[in-house]
Amino acid sequence: MTDRIILGIDPGSNITGYGIIHLRNKSLQLVTAGVFDVSNEEDHFSKLQLIFRGVVKLIEDFHPDEFAVEEPFYGKNVQSMLKLGRAQGVAIAAALHRNLPVTGYSPRKVKQSVTGKGSASKEQVAEMVQRLLDFDKNLYFEDTTDALAVAVCHSFQGKGLSSGGSENYSGWKSFIQQNPERAL
Amino acid sequence: MTDRIILGIDPGSNITGYGIIHLRNKSLQLVTAGVFDVSNEEDHFSKLQLIFRGVVKLIEDFHPDEFAVEEPFYGKNVQSMLKLGRAQGVAIAAALHRNLPVTGYSPRKVKQSVTGKGSASKEQVAEMVQRLLDFDKNLYFEDTTDALAVAVCHSFQGKGLSSGGSENYSGWKSFIQQNPERAL
Repeated sequence: MTDRIILGIDPGSNITGYGIIHLRNKSLQLVTAGVFDVSNEEDHFSKLQLIFRGVVKLIEDFHPDEFAVEEPFYGKNVQSMLKLGRAQGVAIAAALHRNLPVTGYSPRKVKQSVTGKGSASKEQVAEMVQRLLDFDKNLYFEDTTDALAVAVCHSFQGKGLSSGGSENYSGWKSFIQQNPERAL
Repeated sequence: MTDRIILGIDPGSNITGYGIIHLRNKSLQLVTAGVFDVSNEEDHFSKLQLIFRGVVKLIEDFHPDEFAVEEPFYGKNVQSMLKLGRAQGVAIAAALHRNLPVTGYSPRKVKQSVTGKGSASKEQVAEMVQRLLDFDKNLYFEDTTDALAVAVCHSFQGKGLSSGGSENYSGWKSFIQQNPERAL
């Protein structure tokens, strides 16, 4: 029997989305989701501390088995990438601290896994995530659904993968074959 | 009486230097220094885990009171900055995890504090650090002396600073006035 609780994180220097889902057999269930908004903190160490503590607390409260993180590989400038890297770093450290297996996924890989199309729009990803997890689409904002999308993407993978690439991936296809009622 | 143990870190995606110094009254003493070399790890999460655990272990073993980290603000490309940001992030998270006060310094600020000149060469910084801490200059390599330089820079600052800027700073001057035998 499959029974996995997955924490998905979409780190950002100001807004970090999180989503926890429960994969039980072939059923996906939303556990909790939201954001850590640290945009009001002036000092960047305070921002990092809030992200770190936030992720540690999620792990303590919900005991996820696995940790999946969205990892954009490029950005508009070196400054923003440094800040993004730091936010990723503290979120990942929180997982490593609790000995959770960590897997990273590129945005393209997340889109492909969730919608079947690597070039899907944010709206298409959000709609599919909302459909798969069966929640009111007005309930969550973009950063939250992005984090849930990472968790859903990870739930489609077999265990034992340690890094997400851009390879083709058939998880969504097989999921939809087993769950035809979930198809759009 | 001043009695501060300072952990200085110079994070890198492959080589992270560390140096611990003890400031007791006006005397600076080298406690330990070295590097975490994670260049042989293929998976970037394994690299981050080794850096995180390494810094946590230093904190557990040597009980520093303060944490100072070198923070370059620019790099050659967004890829390298993302990796650097992640390494910074996990090192900082290790300190936050242990509730150590964290202060960041730009490379220029470190050079200025240690040598009195923001444009000092790496060799000049290394020589001054070696002189101040009184160790054999063949004992440590560049990344180690860089980390020790961050710790020394921090030891010159008063307590209560939370972020290092590029402002002029008189710590070195006053140190050398009080310790004329340390002057070059």
